[in-house]
Amino acid sequence: MTRFCWTGVATDGQARAGVLHTAHGDVQTPVFMPVGTAATVKAMTADAVRATGARIVLGNTYHLMLRPSAERVAKLGGLHRFMDWPGPILTDSGGFQIMSLDKLRSLDADGVTFRSHLDGSKHRLTPERSMEIQHLLDSTITMALDECTAFPATHDQAETSMALSMRWAARSKAAFQPREGYALFGIVQGSIYHDLRKSSAEALAAIGFDGYAIGGLAVGEGQAAMFETLDGTVPHLPQDRPRYLMGVGTPDDLLGAVQRGVDMFDCVMPTRAGRTGRAYTSRGILNMRNARHAEDAGPIDPECTCPACTKHSRAYLHHLFRCDEMLGPMLLTWHNLTYYQTLMRGLRSAVLECRLEAHAAFLRERWANTPVQ
Amino acid sequence: MTRFCWTGVATDGQARAGVLHTAHGDVQTPVFMPVGTAATVKAMTADAVRATGARIVLGNTYHLMLRPSAERVAKLGGLHRFMDWPGPILTDSGGFQIMSLDKLRSLDADGVTFRSHLDGSKHRLTPERSMEIQHLLDSTITMALDECTAFPATHDQAETSMALSMRWAARSKAAFQPREGYALFGIVQGSIYHDLRKSSAEALAAIGFDGYAIGGLAVGEGQAAMFETLDGTVPHLPQDRPRYLMGVGTPDDLLGAVQRGVDMFDCVMPTRAGRTGRAYTSRGILNMRNARHAEDAGPIDPECTCPACTKHSRAYLHHLFRCDEMLGPMLLTWHNLTYYQTLMRGLRSAVLECRLEAHAAFLRERWANTPVQ
Repeated sequence: MTRFCWTGVATDGQARAGVLHTAHGDVQTPVFMPVGTAATVKAMTADAVRATGARIVLGNTYHLMLRPSAERVAKLGGLHRFMDWPGPILTDSGGFQIMSLDKLRSLDADGVTFRSHLDGSKHRLTPERSMEIQHLLDSTITMALDECTAFPATHDQAETSMALSMRWAARSKAAFQPREGYALFGIVQGSIYHDLRKSSAEALAAIGFDGYAIGGLAVGEGQAAMFETLDGTVPHLPQDRPRYLMGVGTPDDLLGAVQRGVDMFDCVMPTRAGRTGRAYTSRGILNMRNARHAEDAGPIDPECTCPACTKHSRAYLHHLFRCDEMLGPMLLTWHNLTYYQTLMRGLRSAVLECRLEAHAAFLRERWANTPVQ
Repeated sequence: MTRFCWTGVATDGQARAGVLHTAHGDVQTPVFMPVGTAATVKAMTADAVRATGARIVLGNTYHLMLRPSAERVAKLGGLHRFMDWPGPILTDSGGFQIMSLDKLRSLDADGVTFRSHLDGSKHRLTPERSMEIQHLLDSTITMALDECTAFPATHDQAETSMALSMRWAARSKAAFQPREGYALFGIVQGSIYHDLRKSSAEALAAIGFDGYAIGGLAVGEGQAAMFETLDGTVPHLPQDRPRYLMGVGTPDDLLGAVQRGVDMFDCVMPTRAGRTGRAYTSRGILNMRNARHAEDAGPIDPECTCPACTKHSRAYLHHLFRCDEMLGPMLLTWHNLTYYQTLMRGLRSAVLECRLEAHAAFLRERWANTPVQ
């Protein structure tokens, strides 16, 4: 059996390259995890997700507890088998989605009661129930239940919210059933306040987790505030554990966060953009619905190895989106996920070869000099 | 270069097994051709279509002339390159779709003027223009322009309509530019009237085509009348040319038509059904939305080799359709096309081994004894 751990391989400034060892296989970091909300990365077969280079995917506790339910997934052999993903799976705790339900939820010290956005049915999530659900799903990496602090928040609001998350973190740890190669991550909160982030990081380290996530960012604070908060948070996280920035972000966000010492990321951006016709490329963002692509025989990105780029023209992608053909979202999601994986592999290589700064400058220059098309 | 021809390999009763030789590769018959209306088999990558066993696909002149236009496809290197399908492509003539536009079209002796269902723009299709469009698309098998006679039609109506199609067939032949390994097929009309079908078949044979299609069926006449019409039509078609029953049909339709000497088929049924949750299986039709599948860990069809059956449970497919996840239509289209290809391969083997009657009885018994679930 494999003990869950993260092994550092190289550093370049604050940036780190490493390997995550799990019961379901190894993952090289820094890593981007595609989001498979309802036990599927939207518009992709599991084989296609693997073909993009992805080695770990995300599942959503909130969505899966409502449909098909954690108990049913367990009966069917767990999430890995259900969605044909034998590799590692990280599940969020359900906290983020429930907080965004706003008027459909009521929070108390013990947990949160909410109504399903699907049928209005009543549900309750506590740290203990979140651990149980993620256990039933057979999640490789379980996330502690937290309250994702809204933005903006006053220092007082952020402190109260963070303190609640820390109590829930301790309860999550107590309720989590350790298994060889499985992990539980704590989540740092504290909004944009450095003192709160520091207290939160220290509180979590005192409890002791297999990895540390940074939550409550990418919620409207902007990239500058996000980076500044990372600068005030990452130094307080244990050096020998993986660091995961939740729900982030654009290619430029990932680059900046890797430079600040983050190892893991997830975001719906590449998949969602793929469904709406936006392509991430080495030369910036393209909108495939734009008429300028209608007769362009060239690929979306000549540097990309995905099927959309190696087998088809921009003109074909434009045609598919214009006709609302499902193959448009399918191919463009495949492309965007490939771009994100390629980006992360490139960052890892740069860290290994101690040339991240030059690589970052190269990437940023090419992104910046190509307007959205 | 390959000369276009169909070579008979074996017969069993009226049924035939053969090989279609084309500029874009060989195709074993009897064959089912997936429909790729707008230069894509809906919800499938070209690689996935190939993985189902399909070796020839259909394109629609009507849809492609409107979007992205035949001229644009030609500029981009033809339909094969555009949609990543180097194998043979058959294009319909546009007649069937335009006839179904009903109030948006006006027919005259020379051709048909119609308004696009997309934006109301005015277009005109004549036999000459249909040949030109299919040439621009680089279609391997071009279909003559015909009027698909509506059902029901009186003998007089059917005769007038058929006579027009025969004049258009002659003009299609005159306008078609022969190329090595490319083909032009004529289309027999005549509704359900045997004398008209016979005249039509003889008129087309006199003009001389590379293959003969039977049009104007599967338009509401029912299976019994369709089979009866085939019995009255097929004997009048040249023995040494491929026979193509247009727009047909269910697995049982294909079986009955193969038994009556038909070699080629196309139909939206497996792809359309796949998008709505209906699965064709060796034991009849399943509706994956049905709650009875919610906890079923078994595959859709234990005899099937597609990814939906080898990697996932019925419960997973049920979940995907319940959540309106794109992967549901993707996997189920893949499955249905695999089922159709497997069915046709089985029929071919049975013909080769002179056991089609027994095989047909076996198939029908299993379909009949399993109600829709």
